Order: sequence, then structure tokens, then C-alpha cells
Amino acid sequence: MPPRVVDIILRKRAGLALSTEEIEFLIHGYTHDEIPDYQIAAWLMAICWQGMDDRETADLTLAMAHSGDTLDLHDIAPMTVDKHSTGGVGDKTSLVLTPLLASCGLAVAKMSGRGLGFSGGTIDKLESVPGFRAELSLDEFREAVRRIGLVISAQSLELAPADKKLYALRDVTGTVESLPLIASSIMSKKLAAGSDCIVLDVKVGRGAFMPTLTAARTLAHLMVRIGQRAGRQVRAIISDMDQPLGRAVGNALELHEAIDTLHGRGPADLLEVCLQLGSLLLQMAGKAEGGDQARAILQEKLATGAAWTKFRAFVQNQGGDPAVLDSPDRLPLARYIEPLPCPQTGYVAAIDARQAAQATIVLGAGRTTKDTPIDHAVGAVLQVKAGDAVRQGEPLVVLHANDTALLETARQIALAAFDLRAAPTTPPPLILEVV
Amino acid sequence: MPPRVVDIILRKRAGLALSTEEIEFLIHGYTHDEIPDYQIAAWLMAICWQGMDDRETADLTLAMAHSGDTLDLHDIAPMTVDKHSTGGVGDKTSLVLTPLLASCGLAVAKMSGRGLGFSGGTIDKLESVPGFRAELSLDEFREAVRRIGLVISAQSLELAPADKKLYALRDVTGTVESLPLIASSIMSKKLAAGSDCIVLDVKVGRGAFMPTLTAARTLAHLMVRIGQRAGRQVRAIISDMDQPLGRAVGNALELHEAIDTLHGRGPADLLEVCLQLGSLLLQMAGKAEGGDQARAILQEKLATGAAWTKFRAFVQNQGGDPAVLDSPDRLPLARYIEPLPCPQTGYVAAIDARQAAQATIVLGAGRTTKDTPIDHAVGAVLQVKAGDAVRQGEPLVVLHANDTALLETARQIALAAFDLRAAPTTPPPLILEVV
Repeated sequence: MPPRVVDIILRKRAGLALSTEEIEFLIHGYTHDEIPDYQIAAWLMAICWQGMDDRETADLTLAMAHSGDTLDLHDIAPMTVDKHSTGGVGDKTSLVLTPLLASCGLAVAKMSGRGLGFSGGTIDKLESVPGFRAELSLDEFREAVRRIGLVISAQSLELAPADKKLYALRDVTGTVESLPLIASSIMSKKLAAGSDCIVLDVKVGRGAFMPTLTAARTLAHLMVRIGQRAGRQVRAIISDMDQPLGRAVGNALELHEAIDTLHGRGPADLLEVCLQLGSLLLQMAGKAEGGDQARAILQEKLATGAAWTKFRAFVQNQGGDPAVLDSPDRLPLARYIEPLPCPQTGYVAAIDARQAAQATIVLGAGRTTKDTPIDHAVGAVLQVKAGDAVRQGEPLVVLHANDTALLETARQIALAAFDLRAAPTTPPPLILEVV
Repeated sequence: MPPRVVDIILRKRAGLALSTEEIEFLIHGYTHDEIPDYQIAAWLMAICWQGMDDRETADLTLAMAHSGDTLDLHDIAPMTVDKHSTGGVGDKTSLVLTPLLASCGLAVAKMSGRGLGFSGGTIDKLESVPGFRAELSLDEFREAVRRIGLVISAQSLELAPADKKLYALRDVTGTVESLPLIASSIMSKKLAAGSDCIVLDVKVGRGAFMPTLTAARTLAHLMVRIGQRAGRQVRAIISDMDQPLGRAVGNALELHEAIDTLHGRGPADLLEVCLQLGSLLLQMAGKAEGGDQARAILQEKLATGAAWTKFRAFVQNQGGDPAVLDSPDRLPLARYIEPLPCPQTGYVAAIDARQAAQATIVLGAGRTTKDTPIDHAVGAVLQVKAGDAVRQGEPLVVLHANDTALLETARQIALAAFDLRAAPTTPPPLILEVV
């Protein structure tokens, strides 16, 4: 006799650990519409309440990973690698890191999302290039891995459908915030995509989903342990998202900054995050014997232009116009480009990443609901970073807008993002921990 | 703009108190199918987790009480009274107490349920009388109050539909157990039924839904406070349900015992609970100046046969054959009536009420699901109570069965209900507290 759903809910409500069979029964039943939303909603809230131990979380992750198709690319590439960020502001790391890894001979098969709320999406940034196609068939996806060694696709394949269904339910039942649910959601998609080595960038700070280092650390360790239980190699870093990463926030502006970084003239913080994540992956994949060797390889691939060449080939392979990459001035450009002058001489103590994102969302760079159209051209480019000195009248940020009324609103929101002080302050460290 | 349901769930999840408007919004929306089950399920689990304060619980109760029709009988009776028990084993109190109160000139307009699980239902017991009808129209219900001063009806009127819908959802989402949800469910029906004075019998012990005195006390105080906030007079007792109340367990057997009690020859514990509850109601209704006077009035109504006459008129008014009441031997009778002999000489330390109920459920006296048919004739009659001395071979209980195979199973279950000791023990007090 199968277990009764209500009994499983009651066991979790009482703080007991669920068995592998119970978790598989719920996920299978929910995926196949045999268990109603309302029972799963109560169960999710009970998980928010009582938590899940490592074994349960790994079981939940695997049950979701196996709820639909799974990718196995071993017939094309002996080893595939993947990278995931928990989301942040100005985080264009994937655009730099994935061609960098591919240029080192690692196959990168990445599913990526579109932006929602204050967090940008890699697909949106790539779609700034005319012609770029993110919706690939499974055959196109596999062929891209085989030919280029790099593919970035929208989550259109039927991977981890249980996660998709559960996430939609969590969104309307107040059950998004839960470490085991967040970790299993992220990792189920990564496991279903079949990568052998995975590196995670857990963001912490005002522009991140994890507000505290403690929460970020718990999530990072949890995801690494889930990956290990599933037989994958997983490492993680915890990096700062108090201020935006790099200087550009907005789709085409971020793509432009990524291109600059691949050419060796990007912001130092963005480059550092890419080198740190890349170094971990090269070591996991057995391509380097330690951090120093790994970083040397990565820096060489940037210096020789190999990473750039790979990026260009990847975008072209997915339909993007390479001439635009070669002349990024041909990317979508906003009509009004206006600096925001600093009201007082002093020091930038902090730049609130979420507030900065909000200014660009007002301009049209982000989505407030799933179906909002976005404006690829608009956004903001920081002229200062936390810790910098600044004089009255010098620009704090340059806003890119297509509407003067929105520009005025964005200007006020953007100004409030800057914490200006009379005395110098020490900016927060960029990489907080390596897990 | 109406509040977003998910935001209300999140506020409860965070342990915040919800406003009156938020609670009314959810209950109204759910009753009218404007809010889906899954959001309410998550909200219910968040209430199980974070609780509700007195004001919230009263708001929830009133919102449910006003979710459909409400009864107002003041045009027929200046004051109506009601009694509610949280459910137990052998609890035929309502059958004795309601005619007793009606014979004192109080109008008793009672909605009652059918039994489910180990807890019996007043309607099932009354339906042991051939012809008895519990499904009354509103007109019949009102006419019974006017003519007889006593009516007991199945919950067929559309009172508190929100409670009905919420209860069904709680049943399948593991959210039954929650003091504010239990209290508001009970009190919403009582408030909707319009009674001015309400007395509650909160059972505690192995045969009750409340396992501990602490939980029972909290529930009792909570329901009294809800009633006060709603402008009603409410008192409560906490009474023992470690062993069955009285001696009979099973529908016709319990009715028979109630008739005996109305004739002045019932078990002492059953009589005492009736007198205690009746005394509180007479005082609340202004019919007595204190406990002593109230008990004297009640005992007189029993001694003169006034309570019995009222019971007979009430059953006859709802279609029951009074000749069966006059000769209770004509009630449904089981084919096999067998004593269970005591295996050893000693003392009865305890009789597990739930275990005793289980034996009668096996015989067919109770429902395991809402639609199980029941056998009115079967059950058990205790021959001893906790604290009694008993000799080997003397009957502990007499089982009434219609199936010899079931009888054998019931015999074993029943035997396990008795905790027999060599040394005498003190039985638990019957009335633990008056609130």
C-alpha cells in the first residue's frame, strides 16, 4: 500500500526526517498530477518550518533531477563543466567565464535563465546581440557542445519538470525562502543537465537572495554536499554582492563590459571572480595542479585572445552577429546618456546593489513580472566603486535611458544607492570564502 | 488594492499577527472560491507553525461564523443555550443534558455531528430509535425550538460553510492539530447557531483529542475568550477521558444508558458531568444563583420525571418511536452478547478509552471513513471502572456483536484496554477544572 500523503506531511510537520521512498513518492506523484497542489503546499510550508537534513535534501534534489529528461553528453565530451550563480546585480561572470573555460578545452553545457526582479539573466544579456538564439532543440544543444565546446541555452528542454512545478507553487505560497528548497531547486537542474564538475557562486549582501554570510555559507556547503552525494564534483565560492559586480548594470551594457573583460580591459572585481571560479573548475577537471597553475592557464587564454575567439565562435554558432561583437558600439544604444553628478566631495562607503538594480529596472532593463518585455539598451554604468574618493560634481554613475521621465525617477533612485561619507572606509572583501 | 494572498502567508510565516481585514479577506475569498486551496493550505500550516493570538483567533472564528447563514432564534426563544464536547468515548452527555436543560425552561437548539474515528456522535446514537430524523429543514428546526424547546439536528443547514471547507482541507494537509484552528472551528459553528450561553466540555486523556491537561486548559480558555469577544456567555469544564464515560460504548447501548440516567439510575460519572455542565448553564442563563441551587433544580427535574418527559417529546417530535424509548429492550439488539472474563484477581488501574473504542469500532459501532455504514446494536458495556476491585473470572466488559469472527478480534482488543494491577490505585478525578 502506498503511503498516505497526509501522513508524510504530518511526519515532516513533527520534525521527522522523511525516507527516500516518501520523498520520491511525493515528487513522482506531484510531477504526474496525482498529488494535488494543496497537499504539496502544506508539505512545503512544513519544510520551511522543520527543515530537511542533508540526506533528505539530496533525496529531494535527485527526485527532482530525475523527474523528466536528463542530459548525458559523455558520448560527445568526456567531461562537461557548469557554473551557477545564485544571482546578483551586474553579474556578467558567465559571459566571461564560460568561453574562458571552453578555451581551456573543457566542454561547457549551460542552461541559463532570464532575469526576474533585481537579478539579471545571462540569456537576456546575450540577446542584446542581434540574431542570438537561446531556444535550442536538444540536437542543436548537443551539436553546439560537439562543435564549439560551449553552449548556453534557455531552460527550454524538459529538465527537472518537478522543480519547475514546485517553484511555481512556492512562488505563490510563501515557501520560496528555505535553504533545503533553494539548494535542491538549484542542484536538481544542474544534476539533470549532466555536468561532471560544477562551480557555484553564492552571492551575499544587499543585492543577493542570501542576506547574511551565515545563510550563504550554509547554502554553499549544502549544495556542495548534495553534489557529492550525487557523485559530482562541486566547489563553491561566497562572493560579495553588496555593491554591483563590475561597473555595468543592464543587458547590452553588461555584454559590452564582458567583451572588454575578454579583451583584458575589464573591471578588476569581475575578472577576479572569473579567475577564482575558473581556477576551481580547472583543478576539479584535472587540468591544473593547484590555484597558481590554474590562474596562469586562464590568464594566458585571455592574453592570447583564445577566450575571446571562443566567445565569438559561440555567439556566432547560436545565430548572433559577430560583427556586433567586434564593434560593440553597434550594440543597442540608449537615446539619453546622462551622468549623475556627486552632490558632495568625500568617499563612497557603499553602493546598494539592490537600489542600483531598481534604478535600471525603472529604466526598463529588468522584468517585474515574467512577461514584461525588456529594453536591452538601458541601464547604468558605475563611475566609482565602494572605497573610492569622489569630488563634488564628478559623475557617480552614467544612466542610459530611452525615456526622459523614467530617467528622472531613475536618477533619484540611483542617487539613494550611494552611501557617501566624509572619511574613507574600507570596502568589503570580494571573495568571502571558498568552499 | 486588495492584499496579495502570498504576502499574508509570508506575514504569518514570519510570526506576525494578521489584521482583522487580512483574515476576513482570506476567509471570504476562500469561501467564494476566489482563493485556491493551495494558498490556504500553506497558510494553515504557517498557523500550525506560528500560532495566532487571541484577537486573530476571534477574528478567524467570527469570519467563519459569518461566512454563510446564521441562526437567530430570538423571535421564538428569549434565550437559547448550547453545549459542546470535544469528543470522547461513551460520551452520551448531550442525550441527558439537553432534555434536562429544556425541562428547566431553557431553549436548546443544537447542531450535532456524526461520529468519526474513536469518537461517537450524538446523531448516530439518536438514530438507534426507529424513525428518528436528524436532517431538518430550517423551518422544522425553528418549529421544534418553539414547540418543544429542544432540537438536535445534523449539521445540514448552511452554517459556517468556511469552517466546513477549511476542515476538509485541514484533514488532508496535516493541519488539524492547532489550538487556534481547533478553537475557531468549534466556536464558529456555535456562534453561527446563535446561542446566547454555551457550555464546553473539553475532554482530556487517552480517549480525547487533547492528550494533556495543559493543551486542554489552553483550548478551554481560548474558546471561552473567543466567546466573550463575540459577546456570548461561555464557560467550560475540563473532564477526564482516560476511561470511557459511563459504562456503555456503542450507539443503542449508549442511548439505553442515557434513558436509564434520565430515569435516575445511570452511572455516577455520567450524571456528575451532566450536573456540572447543566449547573454552569443554569447560572449563566440566570436561572440559578449559584452551584448549589442549580444542582438542586436539575436533580428535581430528574426526580420528577420532567427531564425524561422532555426527552420523550423531543424524540417523538423528530419522528422517533416513543414506544421504543418506553421499552428500551426494543432498541436494536446484537445477536451475540458475551462477557469478557477477567484473567486475574486484582484492581482495575485504568481502562484505555481509545483502546475500548477500537474494540467497538471493530464490531461495527463506529466509522473509519465518512461513508462507512454503522451497526447501531453493537458495542461494549463496562462491568468495572478504574479503581474497582475485580476477581478472576468476573466480567470486565460485556461485548455486543453481530459477527463471531469480529467478536474474537474485539475481545483481544478490549482485554488490552484494561490495566490490571495487584494493588489498589486511585482513579483519576472526573472533573479536572472549571473554566
